[in-house]
Amino acid sequence: MVMAINGGFPGPNITAKVGDTVEVELSNNLNTEGVVIHWHGIRQFTTPWYDGTASVSQCVINPGQTFLYKFKVDKAGTYFYHGHYGMQREAGLYGSLIVEEGDQGQKEPFQYDGEFSLLLSDWWHQTVYQQEVGLSSDPFQWINEPQSLLINGRGQYNCSLASLPECSLGGGEQWAPNVLKVLPNKTYRLRIASTTSLASLNLAIGGHNVTVVEADGNYVQPFSTTDVDIYSGETYSVLFTTNQNPDENYWISVGVRGRLPQTPQALALVNYLPNHASKFPTSPPPVTPQWDDYNRSKAFSNRIQGLEGTTPPPPADYDRRIMLLNTQNTIDGLTVWAINNVSLSFPPTPYLGALKYGIKAAFDQTPPPDTFPDCRYDIMSPPANPNATTGNAIYTLDFNSTVDVILQNANTLQPNDSEIHPWHMHGHNFWVLGYGDGKFQRGDEKLFEKAGRRPPLKNTAVIFPFGWTALRFVADNPGAWPFHCHIEPHLHMGMGVVIAEGVEFLADVPRETLSCGLTGMMFSGNGEEGHN
Amino acid sequence: MVMAINGGFPGPNITAKVGDTVEVELSNNLNTEGVVIHWHGIRQFTTPWYDGTASVSQCVINPGQTFLYKFKVDKAGTYFYHGHYGMQREAGLYGSLIVEEGDQGQKEPFQYDGEFSLLLSDWWHQTVYQQEVGLSSDPFQWINEPQSLLINGRGQYNCSLASLPECSLGGGEQWAPNVLKVLPNKTYRLRIASTTSLASLNLAIGGHNVTVVEADGNYVQPFSTTDVDIYSGETYSVLFTTNQNPDENYWISVGVRGRLPQTPQALALVNYLPNHASKFPTSPPPVTPQWDDYNRSKAFSNRIQGLEGTTPPPPADYDRRIMLLNTQNTIDGLTVWAINNVSLSFPPTPYLGALKYGIKAAFDQTPPPDTFPDCRYDIMSPPANPNATTGNAIYTLDFNSTVDVILQNANTLQPNDSEIHPWHMHGHNFWVLGYGDGKFQRGDEKLFEKAGRRPPLKNTAVIFPFGWTALRFVADNPGAWPFHCHIEPHLHMGMGVVIAEGVEFLADVPRETLSCGLTGMMFSGNGEEGHN
Repeated sequence: MVMAINGGFPGPNITAKVGDTVEVELSNNLNTEGVVIHWHGIRQFTTPWYDGTASVSQCVINPGQTFLYKFKVDKAGTYFYHGHYGMQREAGLYGSLIVEEGDQGQKEPFQYDGEFSLLLSDWWHQTVYQQEVGLSSDPFQWINEPQSLLINGRGQYNCSLASLPECSLGGGEQWAPNVLKVLPNKTYRLRIASTTSLASLNLAIGGHNVTVVEADGNYVQPFSTTDVDIYSGETYSVLFTTNQNPDENYWISVGVRGRLPQTPQALALVNYLPNHASKFPTSPPPVTPQWDDYNRSKAFSNRIQGLEGTTPPPPADYDRRIMLLNTQNTIDGLTVWAINNVSLSFPPTPYLGALKYGIKAAFDQTPPPDTFPDCRYDIMSPPANPNATTGNAIYTLDFNSTVDVILQNANTLQPNDSEIHPWHMHGHNFWVLGYGDGKFQRGDEKLFEKAGRRPPLKNTAVIFPFGWTALRFVADNPGAWPFHCHIEPHLHMGMGVVIAEGVEFLADVPRETLSCGLTGMMFSGNGEEGHN
Repeated sequence: MVMAINGGFPGPNITAKVGDTVEVELSNNLNTEGVVIHWHGIRQFTTPWYDGTASVSQCVINPGQTFLYKFKVDKAGTYFYHGHYGMQREAGLYGSLIVEEGDQGQKEPFQYDGEFSLLLSDWWHQTVYQQEVGLSSDPFQWINEPQSLLINGRGQYNCSLASLPECSLGGGEQWAPNVLKVLPNKTYRLRIASTTSLASLNLAIGGHNVTVVEADGNYVQPFSTTDVDIYSGETYSVLFTTNQNPDENYWISVGVRGRLPQTPQALALVNYLPNHASKFPTSPPPVTPQWDDYNRSKAFSNRIQGLEGTTPPPPADYDRRIMLLNTQNTIDGLTVWAINNVSLSFPPTPYLGALKYGIKAAFDQTPPPDTFPDCRYDIMSPPANPNATTGNAIYTLDFNSTVDVILQNANTLQPNDSEIHPWHMHGHNFWVLGYGDGKFQRGDEKLFEKAGRRPPLKNTAVIFPFGWTALRFVADNPGAWPFHCHIEPHLHMGMGVVIAEGVEFLADVPRETLSCGLTGMMFSGNGEEGHN
């Protein structure tokens, strides 16, 4: 069972040019579920109400209702869109969103002869309904590893294309791999986006190196590599040149990293024309690097740098630093994730409307902590006191201030265990100042200043097990914005925060985004007035 | 996976006395689904907005929201409550609702020493999410027969209690049957309610006759029988006397009628004290009558008569007669049910608010047909033209007028096939004037007048295969009310109509029921006004 868009899965590719206003009419044809769509990586400057996040930017669109998203795309790059309510992304609500440079605007700092878009995801046989029940159960039932990895919605199960001749490439089967038809001695752009619910991925093309040129809609200093790590929420563009033996076809393989893999690789085929697509590659699919070789992962992440001339350097200093300690905890027998000991529970009234109209009862007005609840917290051991609390307070930022966030990883409830968490920020790009091991200490700022390294702009950055990641951003986008682990069940278990800034500068919030909760009650009055 | 209430399944038993105001606070703790609860059999006089039907009486309650149902119960009887959105009833949203005679009011016209309540339902291993997809697929995927029948939420699967000694009666197991502890030579009241999604049932107590005394919250002329037919949406009270060998225990069995049964009987145990409950009955569970012995079914239904002194006779004549032809059809390749060739599709704006505030765009203003689209329609054959249309127009009734409805069954899309449809009316009781075979013809009214038969008041009445059922009711309850086949997938496929009367006499509709659709837009204005 899959949640489809316009009768298909994944949803349609959306392509626009810089400066375009994109209009998407979303009609909810589900039976009993509300729905929203988030435009991942789009800044939504002056239109935070179209960010498409339930409980933050809008009320959900109920069955039978239609809602118009209307927003400007102001930065070329590789993006995607997806459901942002419950675990509807995993259920299948996603598609590609590509923004090209406009005709008069900036030129891309690289050239290519053709392009392909690969939207990567992971797939479970168990429905998200069952998974949601398991995640909220005592004893806790984890979703476990996906049954398949998907490329543009296609994947294999119980059928290894690479080894089984009976898995022939007819091309029409639902499980048939994507075929990238190329000509020899050309350069192609591969747009890669990961909307996985859980899996951290690695992509490689057999026999071909790739050159990384874009990350999360920002140009990066080009570098050549045999393979690319992609965490959930990230996008990359890579270039590759078809300079190998043109009598052969080649596998693209996508495999799991960062978790003990129990999922077969997903495969796509680079088909050198005029070879037939059914010509089986003579070389096997590239082997995904060892899942727990984190030094290799860190080396890759550290190679991502801003491209001079397209990416400004970060401000030299910050106005406020927020330390976010990521811990796994228990609340009333349930397993949760918490940030500074608070597990995020989304309220029924969207923050944006509550902030704009001063509805203080809509969420907890006591700000959440700016740092660890206990500065002596031992990140290398399971929590001494595993209890956390649920909360829905937000970080209110001074408009146009520069904010540093130190995302601090820690040991889970199990000894000697710490997980990967790719954090995604809505409404902003941030500079990734640096990654470090262990607990962030006074003086670790010097690690930001690696010789000659230019911090890249991104909207998603990973924290490695037992490590920290330092980000800097300017709070210059009026609105309320989620900032959260992009692993779907982790957010569902509370792993996120909400930031807000400059709401006072916004025009009136469109009423159709405010029909629920306390904003809905505000507009409907007390029920005494007649309207007949 | 089951949809639970207060952490349990079925929901809690609700007991009240005539004249009580019942308040139920419904908090939606689902992840992405709206929810409503319908109080099946409660008239909701002056409170139609608390009838709990999505798209008719109120907007759904979204996750994180709380809604207060508050209504008076004015008639003693056996009722139940259940979800009325999508197929959430089948998913598990139901429980018992018993209204007892008040301390000063009417006395019950029978006596007993104790009572038990048996809420009957059917259960599938496939989730309603999967079923809903199948029902809306081309090719059509029917839900097929249930895997188990449940009594108060308990049932068996792959374990026949009656024949397998290893199915011991420990009493603590989830599958253990309900045990009714009785003393010898006493009279007990058994309250039976069926909230099945599909199954028509028959209940019998081994070795004991029962006396039927109540149907759908109305006292009936008592009659003795070996077994009771119960269609979905019906309730009965029966009395039985523990006059059998007191050294034995006895089975209650519940089995399927009206469809080729593929579901094991559900069992409960009548435990004569001081025998131990684990003492296996020496006589087997009563055998459910042959599923397609419709003469037997009709004979039972015809025995239900109003009780003089408690049930008024119907008005002598009607002001308006509505013929409702039930057909199975196709629309755009999908299989649907239609009434007078219109398949009901619920609109996003609840009818009650749309009517009260004159929002004509909320639903089709052209009234649906009062009779068959073609008076020559051959009910004995598959439809010559299987195409139907979807619609959401309503039957507007003159306030306090007397309305006759002839529910006409017909052949399905398959040759020689016609199904059972128990129709349930919200907000009203109707008199069941009579049942007939074949196509209702002018002059068939004489069949209403069986010698001495006093039409019973009910809120649910079956139409038999290839037959018709004639009902009469007074349109005396201001509001908008669904009237539909109580088989959950049939309603989901469009098998229902909506009636409305006297909305102009209603006080203002509570705003919290109107936050969605066009009523929500009306209250929120056009988005131009500032509220800051």
